[in-house]
Amino acid sequence: MDSGDTAFIIICTAMVMLMTPGVGLFYGGMVRKKSIISMISLAFVAFAVVSIQWVLFGYSLAFGTDIGGFIGGLDYVLLNGVSLDGDGIPDMLFMVFQLVFAGLTLAILTSGFAERIKLGSFILFGLLWTTLVYDPLAHWAWGGGWASQLGALDFAGGTVVHISSGFGALAAALVIGKRLGFGQESMKPSNIPLTLLGGALLWFGWFGFNAGSELAADGIAANAFVVTNIAASAGALAWMGASSINGKPSSLGMISGAVAGLVAITPAAGFVNATSAIIIGLIAGLLCYAALLFRSKKGLDESLDAWAIHGVGGFFGAIATGIFCTAAIGGVDGLLYGNAGQFFIQVIDAVAAMAYAFVVTYVLALIVDKTIGLRVDEDEEYVGLDISQHGESTQI
Amino acid sequence: MDSGDTAFIIICTAMVMLMTPGVGLFYGGMVRKKSIISMISLAFVAFAVVSIQWVLFGYSLAFGTDIGGFIGGLDYVLLNGVSLDGDGIPDMLFMVFQLVFAGLTLAILTSGFAERIKLGSFILFGLLWTTLVYDPLAHWAWGGGWASQLGALDFAGGTVVHISSGFGALAAALVIGKRLGFGQESMKPSNIPLTLLGGALLWFGWFGFNAGSELAADGIAANAFVVTNIAASAGALAWMGASSINGKPSSLGMISGAVAGLVAITPAAGFVNATSAIIIGLIAGLLCYAALLFRSKKGLDESLDAWAIHGVGGFFGAIATGIFCTAAIGGVDGLLYGNAGQFFIQVIDAVAAMAYAFVVTYVLALIVDKTIGLRVDEDEEYVGLDISQHGESTQI
Amino acid sequence: MDSGDTAFIIICTAMVMLMTPGVGLFYGGMVRKKSIISMISLAFVAFAVVSIQWVLFGYSLAFGTDIGGFIGGLDYVLLNGVSLDGDGIPDMLFMVFQLVFAGLTLAILTSGFAERIKLGSFILFGLLWTTLVYDPLAHWAWGGGWASQLGALDFAGGTVVHISSGFGALAAALVIGKRLGFGQESMKPSNIPLTLLGGALLWFGWFGFNAGSELAADGIAANAFVVTNIAASAGALAWMGASSINGKPSSLGMISGAVAGLVAITPAAGFVNATSAIIIGLIAGLLCYAALLFRSKKGLDESLDAWAIHGVGGFFGAIATGIFCTAAIGGVDGLLYGNAGQFFIQVIDAVAAMAYAFVVTYVLALIVDKTIGLRVDEDEEYVGLDISQHGESTQI
Repeated sequence: MDSGDTAFIIICTAMVMLMTPGVGLFYGGMVRKKSIISMISLAFVAFAVVSIQWVLFGYSLAFGTDIGGFIGGLDYVLLNGVSLDGDGIPDMLFMVFQLVFAGLTLAILTSGFAERIKLGSFILFGLLWTTLVYDPLAHWAWGGGWASQLGALDFAGGTVVHISSGFGALAAALVIGKRLGFGQESMKPSNIPLTLLGGALLWFGWFGFNAGSELAADGIAANAFVVTNIAASAGALAWMGASSINGKPSSLGMISGAVAGLVAITPAAGFVNATSAIIIGLIAGLLCYAALLFRSKKGLDESLDAWAIHGVGGFFGAIATGIFCTAAIGGVDGLLYGNAGQFFIQVIDAVAAMAYAFVVTYVLALIVDKTIGLRVDEDEEYVGLDISQHGESTQI
Repeated sequence: MDSGDTAFIIICTAMVMLMTPGVGLFYGGMVRKKSIISMISLAFVAFAVVSIQWVLFGYSLAFGTDIGGFIGGLDYVLLNGVSLDGDGIPDMLFMVFQLVFAGLTLAILTSGFAERIKLGSFILFGLLWTTLVYDPLAHWAWGGGWASQLGALDFAGGTVVHISSGFGALAAALVIGKRLGFGQESMKPSNIPLTLLGGALLWFGWFGFNAGSELAADGIAANAFVVTNIAASAGALAWMGASSINGKPSSLGMISGAVAGLVAITPAAGFVNATSAIIIGLIAGLLCYAALLFRSKKGLDESLDAWAIHGVGGFFGAIATGIFCTAAIGGVDGLLYGNAGQFFIQVIDAVAAMAYAFVVTYVLALIVDKTIGLRVDEDEEYVGLDISQHGESTQI
Repeated sequence: MDSGDTAFIIICTAMVMLMTPGVGLFYGGMVRKKSIISMISLAFVAFAVVSIQWVLFGYSLAFGTDIGGFIGGLDYVLLNGVSLDGDGIPDMLFMVFQLVFAGLTLAILTSGFAERIKLGSFILFGLLWTTLVYDPLAHWAWGGGWASQLGALDFAGGTVVHISSGFGALAAALVIGKRLGFGQESMKPSNIPLTLLGGALLWFGWFGFNAGSELAADGIAANAFVVTNIAASAGALAWMGASSINGKPSSLGMISGAVAGLVAITPAAGFVNATSAIIIGLIAGLLCYAALLFRSKKGLDESLDAWAIHGVGGFFGAIATGIFCTAAIGGVDGLLYGNAGQFFIQVIDAVAAMAYAFVVTYVLALIVDKTIGLRVDEDEEYVGLDISQHGESTQI
């Protein structure tokens, strides 16, 4: 065990934990005043529920002994056999570093349910989703599953976190349906400073997310930090630039572009250099902005654009990893360095994660909807989820 | 000295420092609009005052050479003799790690004075309280005082931080009296997103608080992190569940439950395992919720429930440590593992801390009240402390 | 390479990054409701623009091979030759630790442009300013330039960050002119809780800023942490005390005093002891408060007092370093310990940085103003920058 590496991952874990309320604030500022509390609360609830699930059996499903490349066994149920000792860092620390990723992912997905989900149904859905979507995807990439066997690269969760939550949010939005008045009434963000604050916490926490994924305080962690910051900055500027063609460059666009850059660099952070990070960040900003325009044009109410940013950005990032990765950083060359094989592996991995996340999320949402119902009543939606789900309000 | 441990405790210290404004925001969102600024400011003022007191003589009172098991000597006045070198971490770093705990504790206590305390009187009271309540309690538990001699376990401050501030807040509220209109006018929280943000910073900082209390980046620190997160999550879900029987599960209840879990696990974090943490968190959520209902029913204006959450949660946690602690984690078995002795030691420690904190706080508050007066005038209270104490307002 | 030091600086870098949105929130709360989003956004934009500039060539200008003591060469353009290996910490990590300082500095300067700058012009100005003011100053102090050759001490950026941004903001304000209605209409802070939150993030991040500047997790880093916290606390109390003579002690004064203390201790943090830190903090609080009164009396619209706090505080801190530094901490004695030479070196350094920053900023602002124009139209200013520059509003 190394005290430096252990110190590093303990703090990174705390930073990633802070991203979950960060998502809540980020989303909370984007909804109408009547649902701000609900939106922030969903992030906390997601985190609490997943925290318990992960300790009970989720970690075991993701990181237990491999079963057919698909899922882990029940070796670590209730953290049985998870040691306070370990190689470099305590096994127990690795467990909780993974836990905060799982909690965050479900929080991102709440975008698709914004302002219309029943609290109790979300808890049930969240338990099912984490168990049947997140845990397998984590196993595929990091727990010895088929994707890692194939040699797919996902440094910090392009497929596991972003494709899964982004395409999951899309499926969720399709099942639950549009908000009342969507496309007719104004649904402008009601508290942009809250969103910018949330974005700041995300950017901050993302350093723990990407650099921490090296699981050691070394040069690769430093590289991950650097390319993360570059991609965020490039994404912010690209989205601002592109959106200023159609009108004024909104701060929401700027921070969305930053998140797009952060998402896209996530799978690549330990494998690409600074120049590639600029390109990845710029493209991510432009691409996710285009995806948002597409989503909006289609009249789709995937309300807070987890699909456009995390889904599309994560998909692009997974593939960009196969293009830009270089043996000089992470030991593996990509398409740009003559290794087309890695590129195709990345495409397979990204498509599989996308298809699995979309389909299984759709089915799970449908099951919850047909049984206990996903959506609040019309009048509950009309008064807003703050009052109808929590008995609280920001408008006193 | 170890650079990994030193890095760890430096960052943990910063994280714990952030908890103090975190408490300010947490409390600030719960009061009426006319006192938000005041409430946040009290946390900052508490921290600034204690920071100076601690450097001048507070650290010495807590950690100087033991005098009769009760208090430390004046060896370290003005940090005289506090080395930049040390065993594992610099002595100077240990000093400031302890400083941020002391500052936070006074900030928690402001709950009992909410919306009615004179700023100047609070500064005087705070100086007295830190010197005569906090410093002795820190000495008892961690500075070689009677409790540590007895073998009482308090990993990160169940008695020192939470029982002291929680029962201190109760005494403070009894002396200063209820807010004007309490029980008649609505005193609903005016800015719940602020409270949730504060709660997020608390949860984040608590990892530094509990894991950092190991003073090394090792397996026990990892265990402390894990059980901290489990207890917070279990507490949040327990309070939400219990409160949904009486009505809608508020976000305020959820975050209060999380804090209850965090409080209760604090003394136990280096001594119990994950399964025990689930139980401790669940009970803490239920118990502190019941305490809040009791406080409310009694018409007691301990305004922001430091007593119900920190006091009761801390008391329960101190005792739970004596039940659930296991030699497999921290070297000491508790009641559950056949060692009833530890349980009784914990009871003695918790009762002593409670009695001492309550009585001495009561006397100190009374002294300040009878001399310079604790409470603002009626018209100052009516317009709110933001205007009357600071000449500022959030309502422009 | 040392994993403890590397862990330390990675996390410190993230903490300093968080200071940039921290400044945005700090400033955002001080402006009128119609410009909150703009003010926060300027901080993000500053950070994104500087992040890219630094990677492209800024780092090389600051830390490349010295050219005549004034600027660095182009050795590290596009991070060419910046290694993932290094001495203690990876060179790449040192690069990004310096990057976050550069981004923050430009964000501080936005004070002088508040509520009247064109977004596009700010981006151009920011690029020029970072290249022609920040990069040379960083080279002088830390990149082997004349000031470091002379033996000037600047532990964490008194000249580089605070004098440069503070006097830069003054020059910027003089060129762009006062806000419409300045001195006639009320321009009270519209969201003080936001400012206090920003201040909390600044205080938190400053530990990474000052302690991290040691570039190692050791006793000096611990000392830097301790004196940083002392100076902040003393500054807060001093400003509160002084301002309560003229009226009520505002929370804005309290947090401004804290920042003044933080600024003043910045160059001194690795060189002075705790007692000196109390004195430095107290004087900084009083001096910067006096500077603010002076600025206000002169009818100068350096809107958010970067000059009074960062400029004057940084200037005082640079000189105070030459007075209070002691060989017992950082190896160099100051005036108080009989070494007048160091005092004069500090004066020369501070005056040079002040003059250079003021003059060059003035010229750059003038150039941008005479070409593409710095300032928005009257009607754009009247409706506020949120709507006119971003098409957004907090007032829906």
